[in-house]
Amino acid sequence: MQIVIPIFERITPLDAIGPYEVLGRLPGVDLRFAAVEAGPVRVDGNALELVADASLDELPRPDVVVVPGGYGTRPRVRDQRIVEWLRDVHEHTTWTTSVCTGALLLGEAGILDGLEATTHWTQLEKLRDYGATPASRRVVEQGKVITAAGVSAGIDMALTLAARLAGDTVAQAAQLYIEYDPEPPFDSGSLAKAPPEVIELLRGEAAKRDAAA
Amino acid sequence: MQIVIPIFERITPLDAIGPYEVLGRLPGVDLRFAAVEAGPVRVDGNALELVADASLDELPRPDVVVVPGGYGTRPRVRDQRIVEWLRDVHEHTTWTTSVCTGALLLGEAGILDGLEATTHWTQLEKLRDYGATPASRRVVEQGKVITAAGVSAGIDMALTLAARLAGDTVAQAAQLYIEYDPEPPFDSGSLAKAPPEVIELLRGEAAKRDAAA
Repeated sequence: MQIVIPIFERITPLDAIGPYEVLGRLPGVDLRFAAVEAGPVRVDGNALELVADASLDELPRPDVVVVPGGYGTRPRVRDQRIVEWLRDVHEHTTWTTSVCTGALLLGEAGILDGLEATTHWTQLEKLRDYGATPASRRVVEQGKVITAAGVSAGIDMALTLAARLAGDTVAQAAQLYIEYDPEPPFDSGSLAKAPPEVIELLRGEAAKRDAAA
Repeated sequence: MQIVIPIFERITPLDAIGPYEVLGRLPGVDLRFAAVEAGPVRVDGNALELVADASLDELPRPDVVVVPGGYGTRPRVRDQRIVEWLRDVHEHTTWTTSVCTGALLLGEAGILDGLEATTHWTQLEKLRDYGATPASRRVVEQGKVITAAGVSAGIDMALTLAARLAGDTVAQAAQLYIEYDPEPPFDSGSLAKAPPEVIELLRGEAAKRDAAA
């Protein structure tokens, strides 16, 4: 079974690497990172590059696709060749999934039309532009399409997907391998839980970054 | 404030990328990935490369160090130049931290001698070889040394460290940005919680991989 994670300039690397650590260990899985052209892409925040061994064109028939997010998904900067690849491969996938603003790429490819979907909380209402109904859940499954909320939600989504692909015991083993037994020191990980001053701080920063993206 | 995350061949990428997503957003932080030589290192599982912009020698005085793990930390394969760099920089750091088997590199550098520490659960007893007392906690703080348990525990550790470096509100904002409000579909993320058949499956695989590493 082939799983492809497309990567691109200004990716949020945890969106891709979280699912990799869960799905890359499943028995019988051939997991590939691919970019429009094989080679390096620079992550959001500019601190390092990720290098894809393959181009998207080399991988026209993945069984599973996991689309990460990042500023590189925004309309003014995204590469339309990823959107076209997604539109093509989705016809044949078993599962088409996204993490964070990867959902904007699925939306642009027409994959979310008529579905419930989620994305990073700052972009949730934008899903309506693609005919989707925003859902404030961490993982939203609709037929073969699964969308996850922001960044770290990709880990939860990948565990859900691992169970579908390889059964509960193997998925639980993946969880134990990555010791995913979260104990965050704060309970501030969602809009419903974070203190108002934290939300205000972030909304201001996100608006500034989106304006600059 | 400079934070350095050293990377190396056969790194577990989530060990590095989880903390990056939390710490790289803090105001006033200059976060760098560095390797023995600047350039690419291949991750454990072989699916992609991470590229460090800097060599360790270029960064002799980090304020904070976050050492990730992976099979590249094992005695037969680790690069002694990372250990020497850690020994040198630790004299001047504000915080010296590790995720997963990054603790084995701290141990080899003599940094854990006499301290409580943690690491990936499969390697916990090995900490005794370095004069450390294994602690089955997710994040273990001892003076300026913080060690985290396996892989995903680096996210919790980074949030704890973010609060020390920048205060609780900023740390909570980082948590909200990455939507770290975990909802794993199983409760199998620690030895104490995973079903026996899951633990047996993984112990067998880990032993095989360690023998091959």
